[in-house]
Amino acid sequence: MQNYKLILASQSPRRKELLSQLNRPFEVVVRDSGEEVYPDGMANEAVPVYLAKQKAEAYKADYQEKDVVVITADTIVCCNGEVLGKPKDKEDAVRMLKMLSNCGHKVITGVTLTSAEKQKSFTASTTVFFKELTEDEIEYYIENYQPFDKAGAYGIQEWIGMIGIERIEGSYFNVVGLPVQKLYTELLKF
Amino acid sequence: MQNYKLILASQSPRRKELLSQLNRPFEVVVRDSGEEVYPDGMANEAVPVYLAKQKAEAYKADYQEKDVVVITADTIVCCNGEVLGKPKDKEDAVRMLKMLSNCGHKVITGVTLTSAEKQKSFTASTTVFFKELTEDEIEYYIENYQPFDKAGAYGIQEWIGMIGIERIEGSYFNVVGLPVQKLYTELLKF
Repeated sequence: MQNYKLILASQSPRRKELLSQLNRPFEVVVRDSGEEVYPDGMANEAVPVYLAKQKAEAYKADYQEKDVVVITADTIVCCNGEVLGKPKDKEDAVRMLKMLSNCGHKVITGVTLTSAEKQKSFTASTTVFFKELTEDEIEYYIENYQPFDKAGAYGIQEWIGMIGIERIEGSYFNVVGLPVQKLYTELLKF
Repeated sequence: MQNYKLILASQSPRRKELLSQLNRPFEVVVRDSGEEVYPDGMANEAVPVYLAKQKAEAYKADYQEKDVVVITADTIVCCNGEVLGKPKDKEDAVRMLKMLSNCGHKVITGVTLTSAEKQKSFTASTTVFFKELTEDEIEYYIENYQPFDKAGAYGIQEWIGMIGIERIEGSYFNVVGLPVQKLYTELLKF
């Protein structure tokens, strides 16, 4: 691990912040990896790794360099069998938060490590339980936090997470956007 | 809840930061509440609320004012039946982290709300699972993060939490120092 030059292929400020806490130098590179599409009928759990691998393809010029490892990742929220991505608009965000209210859901992140010689992918899954959210709470949150860049229309580290999330099972940082503990372990083995 | 003036009776910067995320004005007041002692043989789960109530006694001048609610809290870490407080020195911190390595433990916070008319206490418990920590990891963490102000000798939001904590069951913010979701709900009912 110590000899690799790490590249984080993500424009998420949360992923950058989390990775930086491993105290290991890395660079952020963002390339256009096209639209995120996956085959119809694919099992929900398989989607994030599929998309993380797909994103890696856009970074060929980077990982073909000597001793470079590119980290790509994708996070989805699964609730009642539906995959929730980023909300299209306010109405969609309200719909998503009403779905998540008083109902456990899964946050699944797929991570792919790619170098010139090899590729390794892994998945982390956390179950998150919201209390019953009131219409006022949903309204206040969307108005003040504009969660349109977030899968499932919420950030666990924001107001709605503070007042609404009763408990989780799994990695907290996975819900923020990157399963850093698993990533650390996988990088040591890579 | 809206009419109360909230006082956070804690010098913990983490508790202040968490409470501020509820977007509700409050004041931090720190008074000397003496040594934290509890009766021999008290059940571990009962200790944090006992200490939170004890701390509240030092704030009589504050909560006897009209419409003031004082929040006191205490957090302990329980592992294999032992209550871990703040480590005395480096050796003690090493001992605690070796105990927590590859072994689930509980983080229990007791919170007490006190006004001139009433008092309400509640407890939040989160189970935290560390991977097996290496001696190098424990050494590096203590050297660089000096976790002497933290029960159990670690901060979940620091490097050791990123690389070491595989999963939790319960509230993440409780482990940081204050179960804000439960506090929000209890303040609404107070």
